Amino acid sequence: MFTDVDLMTAIITPFDEELKIDYKALKKLTEHLLATGSKGFVIGGTTGETPTLTENEKLDLYRNFTEIVDGRVPIIAGAGSNNTAQTIDFINKLAKIQGIDMALVVVPYYNKPNQRGMIAHFEAIAKNSPLPIMIYNIPGRTGVLMEKETVVKLSQNNNISGVKQCNTMEDLEYIVEHTTDDFNVYSGEDAQALFAKVIGANGVISVASHLYGDEMTEMYQKLDAGDYKTAGKIQRQLTPKMAALFMYSSPSPVKAALNKLGYKVGGCRLPIVSLNEAEKAVLFEKLNL
Amino acid sequence: MFTDVDLMTAIITPFDEELKIDYKALKKLTEHLLATGSKGFVIGGTTGETPTLTENEKLDLYRNFTEIVDGRVPIIAGAGSNNTAQTIDFINKLAKIQGIDMALVVVPYYNKPNQRGMIAHFEAIAKNSPLPIMIYNIPGRTGVLMEKETVVKLSQNNNISGVKQCNTMEDLEYIVEHTTDDFNVYSGEDAQALFAKVIGANGVISVASHLYGDEMTEMYQKLDAGDYKTAGKIQRQLTPKMAALFMYSSPSPVKAALNKLGYKVGGCRLPIVSLNEAEKAVLFEKLNL
Amino acid sequence: MFTDVDLMTAIITPFDEELKIDYKALKKLTEHLLATGSKGFVIGGTTGETPTLTENEKLDLYRNFTEIVDGRVPIIAGAGSNNTAQTIDFINKLAKIQGIDMALVVVPYYNKPNQRGMIAHFEAIAKNSPLPIMIYNIPGRTGVLMEKETVVKLSQNNNISGVKQCNTMEDLEYIVEHTTDDFNVYSGEDAQALFAKVIGANGVISVASHLYGDEMTEMYQKLDAGDYKTAGKIQRQLTPKMAALFMYSSPSPVKAALNKLGYKVGGCRLPIVSLNEAEKAVLFEKLNL
Amino acid sequence: MFTDVDLMTAIITPFDEELKIDYKALKKLTEHLLATGSKGFVIGGTTGETPTLTENEKLDLYRNFTEIVDGRVPIIAGAGSNNTAQTIDFINKLAKIQGIDMALVVVPYYNKPNQRGMIAHFEAIAKNSPLPIMIYNIPGRTGVLMEKETVVKLSQNNNISGVKQCNTMEDLEYIVEHTTDDFNVYSGEDAQALFAKVIGANGVISVASHLYGDEMTEMYQKLDAGDYKTAGKIQRQLTPKMAALFMYSSPSPVKAALNKLGYKVGGCRLPIVSLNEAEKAVLFEKLNL
Repeated sequence: MFTDVDLMTAIITPFDEELKIDYKALKKLTEHLLATGSKGFVIGGTTGETPTLTENEKLDLYRNFTEIVDGRVPIIAGAGSNNTAQTIDFINKLAKIQGIDMALVVVPYYNKPNQRGMIAHFEAIAKNSPLPIMIYNIPGRTGVLMEKETVVKLSQNNNISGVKQCNTMEDLEYIVEHTTDDFNVYSGEDAQALFAKVIGANGVISVASHLYGDEMTEMYQKLDAGDYKTAGKIQRQLTPKMAALFMYSSPSPVKAALNKLGYKVGGCRLPIVSLNEAEKAVLFEKLNL
Repeated sequence: MFTDVDLMTAIITPFDEELKIDYKALKKLTEHLLATGSKGFVIGGTTGETPTLTENEKLDLYRNFTEIVDGRVPIIAGAGSNNTAQTIDFINKLAKIQGIDMALVVVPYYNKPNQRGMIAHFEAIAKNSPLPIMIYNIPGRTGVLMEKETVVKLSQNNNISGVKQCNTMEDLEYIVEHTTDDFNVYSGEDAQALFAKVIGANGVISVASHLYGDEMTEMYQKLDAGDYKTAGKIQRQLTPKMAALFMYSSPSPVKAALNKLGYKVGGCRLPIVSLNEAEKAVLFEKLNL
Repeated sequence: MFTDVDLMTAIITPFDEELKIDYKALKKLTEHLLATGSKGFVIGGTTGETPTLTENEKLDLYRNFTEIVDGRVPIIAGAGSNNTAQTIDFINKLAKIQGIDMALVVVPYYNKPNQRGMIAHFEAIAKNSPLPIMIYNIPGRTGVLMEKETVVKLSQNNNISGVKQCNTMEDLEYIVEHTTDDFNVYSGEDAQALFAKVIGANGVISVASHLYGDEMTEMYQKLDAGDYKTAGKIQRQLTPKMAALFMYSSPSPVKAALNKLGYKVGGCRLPIVSLNEAEKAVLFEKLNL
Repeated sequence: MFTDVDLMTAIITPFDEELKIDYKALKKLTEHLLATGSKGFVIGGTTGETPTLTENEKLDLYRNFTEIVDGRVPIIAGAGSNNTAQTIDFINKLAKIQGIDMALVVVPYYNKPNQRGMIAHFEAIAKNSPLPIMIYNIPGRTGVLMEKETVVKLSQNNNISGVKQCNTMEDLEYIVEHTTDDFNVYSGEDAQALFAKVIGANGVISVASHLYGDEMTEMYQKLDAGDYKTAGKIQRQLTPKMAALFMYSSPSPVKAALNKLGYKVGGCRLPIVSLNEAEKAVLFEKLNL
């Protein structure tokens, strides 16, 4: 569905001092991200702290974000849960918002469906969704892995258009090899950003691009220009910084870094806690901030 | 808080043919469980498919269940989520129901708070809850482990009264050793039922007791009577059956087994799928049903 | 084969200042162990640093040790390697020593045979061994797990008489349940000492018994006397100390502790390094030494 | 030390029908490998079944192999064990053979040294070795991981010249980034072959190159020519075949495949068993043989 969109950002949700969504900060951040190479967005993903947003907040957020982006790049909106019926209900609400290209539906977390349950879940949603679906496969959070064969099987559904995959390189390669070209395959792991593109995936849905959009863009450009050595050097120098952004519960580190850089994105809602001073010191040293 | 309650059951939620809660089946099942040794209940836990119940369904379920149990044994009601504010809100609603002794609050799943976030989450809830809290620590579902030291620290909060622990024996022993006698420590792993009691925990919050309440009761009685050899034999013979109840996504196996035994508890809501015929055949062979 | 032998010690190999085997220290340590409840020994196990002993040193060690023990308790001698032919050759040499009851043969490490290779390995050895074999199943060191069904299958070989098992409680229970009473089943994990006996295994082959023989003996006696609560309390208080003995590469911690207590067992041979002062301080605090 | 050596093969040891080393088959295989792109060799690695070769067999094998290769490409000879003194002894014997460029020394397996023990082990060997050392870091076989910082520290030793690394991409990148250009960094994982080179490592020490040398050579050539897309396609199509070569205990699958192709490399020595007919059928289907 997307072409030439290699670098997407899973954007954070900025909060003000009362922990309400801060749309002014969101506007400023979005412009920064577009200026540093983000060619698309996931709004309302895990990085966006959606577990702590109410349904109305989410719809409001999506509405405002589509206005900010104003068609300049594609938008994928978070829509998943571990309740099939509720996911269908919500996806029909968000589909009324103009400017959303796809709905990101996570493999159900916590209640741990097996492959057959995952297939039933995604097929029921795909059948009842006005928007195409991107699968979000992140076993480190959900406690269950959607097997590569299951992703491929679901890719044959007309209304399932892509996957954000957070697992091994082997699985990512398999999915690229066994799906058609119009099925979008993204890695959700920043450390796989370069290799995802090398082996034929579309690219990465990134957290690190909040801070390193220019470097990641250069990395992809060098690769496209045939200079894999420079691309490889950029990746290996970014990897430890990408890891640092997950050394405390995400998105508290990326929010702390953005605040340090002047973007006023605020703190986190419980159960995620903002970094304390000691944690900030450790993080900023790792990021050279 | 509880004394002499070694065997508790995390009870399933029976559904009728339209997948609505079937209170008649719930009544029948509850009486069966009480008759086969359950000395307390968790209602609305993972086994109860709460991710797929609406808030109103949950409150209605809890209300009806307290009437069925009618004070005969203690009741712990599931109340957790990965959203601190929402958990506080819900716990205040369920606290209005007479006959609930404790609220089970799971470590936040999916958004993966660190230890500091977990502490903030549970302290905020404990402070704002009319009911005492039992922590539910199940890293295999949540993706994060509440460390044993964190459990011990939280045990010192006056309104946190227990833990349902699903991790190593070492952690369970540490928690028993470092908490006071009135802090309830249960294993949430059926395979640890015997050893949990041996090393000084209260006992187990069980799924297997839906089927093996008599055997588990006998196991605990033999242990109390000094006959550890018979108790050990019962545990080692039950362990493979307990494992079989998790060979497909829980609670689909225990529901299939109860249906086979005539309890008419119905199927599962998506994303959990009921067992198909082939799966039933495998399961029933393992359970000798 | 063994009856009433619940507590066995996998004895260290004492070295003098030139890192040669110190038989005087071995004699003193052995008497201490017998006096504090060891009812049998593994000599030349991993704890005995056999990877760094030459074949002649091993045979000399076994010869001297059988003289020290002098028939008072059973002796199992380490004989395994990841080379089937070499294991058969060595076992025939050690079998000439009077007073060895069994040969401990580890699942091949490093070259990672599969189940079929393990069966071929153990059957070839059993067929060519004058001594009965005890399987040593320790996946954390070997990189491969002998599955519980494979242990059971091999238990039917007349010359395979037992297993030292270092894996889950579930596997230990399964092996006890599916083998005959004369097949010896020991846990090789100190933290499983109590539960191994509770579920019907013979007991434990221990490292911690170098230091805590009296306590472990009391633990087993209390269990046999019907007082599981005291037994459970002893286990849960010993477990963290047992873990501390593996916080640095074994057997460097147990050797440091024995040296501190006056047993002069010396240092370790490379690649195992003796504890430095900082490590000793951490260890001794955990052990209250 | 090596430059422009991106594809090395960890060559198997061919056996005749009596399971003795078959030098005629070795000669034929070596010529095949040189003809299909191998630019260097590891002889006597794990793939070469060295745990089951006697010391004399190993020395004889190395002597013959250097004559076969006759200086055409570099040779690294396996020399490690979990006994420091024995490793030093052996390395001095093999160093007398003309034509060996480096000794491969594995992180000690089974006795599990910690980082300090690993450093002591490698420094003692480096000090006493006439040959430069390549570290072999393979936690899946040894049970212990040499941390990336330890590899970097050891890289500063004048007589330690490289590492064969079998762990995450993150660790491989870190090692490349933090070592000098003359320190050789190879991945020992075929699935990382392409990415290892992309991020600046020398290349891969391969098992799959026994069968896919032409394809792997083309992959590297395409990458060097700026055509990452074709290189990525070759990798993602080879990855499942590379995995198949480890679906049974290595090197039994690669030997079976070579036998099928007419190279008469024989079976395996216990405890590794040759593939049976059913296993061969599964393997050959995955390899399209």
